[in-house]
Amino acid sequence: MSQQWWDQPVAAPDRESEAAARQRQDRLTKPPGSLGQLEDLAVRLAGLQGEAKPDLSNVRIAVFAADHGVAAEGVSAFPQAVTTEMIRNFSRGGAAVSVLAGEMGADLEVVDLGAAVDPGPLPGVVPARIAPATGNMRQGPAMVAEELEAALAAGWDAAERAAESGTRLFIGGEMGIANTTAATALACGLTGQSPEALVGPGTGLDPAGVDRKAAVIRDALGLHVPDPSEPLAALRTVGGFELAALTGAYIAVAQRGIPVLVDGFIATTAALAAVRLNPNVAPWLVYAHRSAEPGHDAVLADLEAAPLLDLGMRLGEGSGAAAAVSLLRSAVALHNGMATFAEADISA
Amino acid sequence: MSQQWWDQPVAAPDRESEAAARQRQDRLTKPPGSLGQLEDLAVRLAGLQGEAKPDLSNVRIAVFAADHGVAAEGVSAFPQAVTTEMIRNFSRGGAAVSVLAGEMGADLEVVDLGAAVDPGPLPGVVPARIAPATGNMRQGPAMVAEELEAALAAGWDAAERAAESGTRLFIGGEMGIANTTAATALACGLTGQSPEALVGPGTGLDPAGVDRKAAVIRDALGLHVPDPSEPLAALRTVGGFELAALTGAYIAVAQRGIPVLVDGFIATTAALAAVRLNPNVAPWLVYAHRSAEPGHDAVLADLEAAPLLDLGMRLGEGSGAAAAVSLLRSAVALHNGMATFAEADISA
Repeated sequence: MSQQWWDQPVAAPDRESEAAARQRQDRLTKPPGSLGQLEDLAVRLAGLQGEAKPDLSNVRIAVFAADHGVAAEGVSAFPQAVTTEMIRNFSRGGAAVSVLAGEMGADLEVVDLGAAVDPGPLPGVVPARIAPATGNMRQGPAMVAEELEAALAAGWDAAERAAESGTRLFIGGEMGIANTTAATALACGLTGQSPEALVGPGTGLDPAGVDRKAAVIRDALGLHVPDPSEPLAALRTVGGFELAALTGAYIAVAQRGIPVLVDGFIATTAALAAVRLNPNVAPWLVYAHRSAEPGHDAVLADLEAAPLLDLGMRLGEGSGAAAAVSLLRSAVALHNGMATFAEADISA
Repeated sequence: MSQQWWDQPVAAPDRESEAAARQRQDRLTKPPGSLGQLEDLAVRLAGLQGEAKPDLSNVRIAVFAADHGVAAEGVSAFPQAVTTEMIRNFSRGGAAVSVLAGEMGADLEVVDLGAAVDPGPLPGVVPARIAPATGNMRQGPAMVAEELEAALAAGWDAAERAAESGTRLFIGGEMGIANTTAATALACGLTGQSPEALVGPGTGLDPAGVDRKAAVIRDALGLHVPDPSEPLAALRTVGGFELAALTGAYIAVAQRGIPVLVDGFIATTAALAAVRLNPNVAPWLVYAHRSAEPGHDAVLADLEAAPLLDLGMRLGEGSGAAAAVSLLRSAVALHNGMATFAEADISA
């Protein structure tokens, strides 16, 4: 296999900045360790940004939207038209992630990789349409090879735009009716677990709907037999455009030395694909929250990831990661702004 | 017993505003329930503020500082002088809670209830000195009755200042060398649990120090025999000025119809005393985080409280609550700012 862009090196975090940050933490006016994970976060971000005092003023959220052929199997509580309707809602500022991006002053872009209904030109929406939807994984592969490459490249493009705009923290979000079905199938393919173990209600299926969804995923896995050591094949056969774009974005963002805050189940499944493709991506991924979607635990466990928040969120769009940004910013503000024992003349 | 101010009524949350907020949540452009606890928080704050759309622009943090006679028993990793040194650090903006207050634009006041060294006049520090420290609980009661009343009243005064300045969310913090010893003794007194079950390292005692601390608390409990149904007696004999002031503040803030965000172990122990004194205070208390200090779990369990964050923090000062404010603000921003399905013309 020829060397592709996603195989290109990802640098290790800067141990010198990390050590300087750890030293600073131990001099701040508090008992050592008393800020818990906020201390570790500041130190980790220092290592990732290569600065003893990290900076999270410039945060970027890219939401990848796409439709799924498997929606025809009745695996979602919402009709397929909602993908495009939500793209419009993102653009107009009415969606959860739009509100959170506004609150924190983050840049928000939406990348249309192929919603069934073309939304047309909209402010803040980048057209990158590959097809009106993926293929129905129950009947054939979700993508052909060229489509997979285009979806991965859309992630690379988003990383490039982020780097050009000076992003210091990248969040990837997703929107696509039926995409927990694709993510669950991909998670099964990458972890070797059964659909019954990982499947969940997504946007709100009833128990009978969840059983139907599991059966659809079981059929797709039987048809394509994804191999955990072949993440590209798994992405192509049972993934989705937004899952592949997130995978590409995580790798390309890490290659540019920018830390990533990973959202919930779907984003974490893409993160697992990214780490399988290029294991050096792993240290660049900070996990924001534990989703209520049942498959998330298994994917997090595979990545040995411990998310910051556990608030029962399961919306996607990058909303859980967006909600966690303020914690990272608190960690950084404390790290950069607190007095040292010497500065405050305190007996230690 | 005559009717005291802390026995005065606390109103119930406004069920009408709560119902209106729940109805709004179910119309926002997301699957119902998909924002998890952020939905419940917005609805709860609506009920507490009596507004279908709550408002957290005006947040106030009052840090109560005091010294403890029991510090003479060698129960802290830091010398007693640090209480006053930290009051200066709060005033100059170098402490954790100062940095977080600045980040979120919260009002911060420090109430000096009796640090061993008088800090003198300082910006942002309210002098309310009761004595240079409490009495050593191992040898006698921490306070006489008049001191307890003065400490509770200092909390009432802080609540009054908060109400006058239009506070929409109140956070109480604390600072006082040896105050995890007092809080642990009080928690034992209020829950009936043993010091061995609740004691912890505080600012950083080694295991031998923790054993010594447990022995000191055991002696104090043996001397005063606090009764869980007599919270005032427990506060007076084994509490502290800042613990009593927090107790008074929580009650007086709830009486003024302002929600409270409760910090970690020490603050939650004061919250338990407040709820024992006036059970209608309970609905007004939102719990911010689970502290790493071992006694916190028992006190939270007694209150049937489920905190929002679990980040291994154990600093006090109100810092864990301050770190959680942004989550409450995210919940409110989403609630107030997201489009409804009708507004966004989305197929539901």
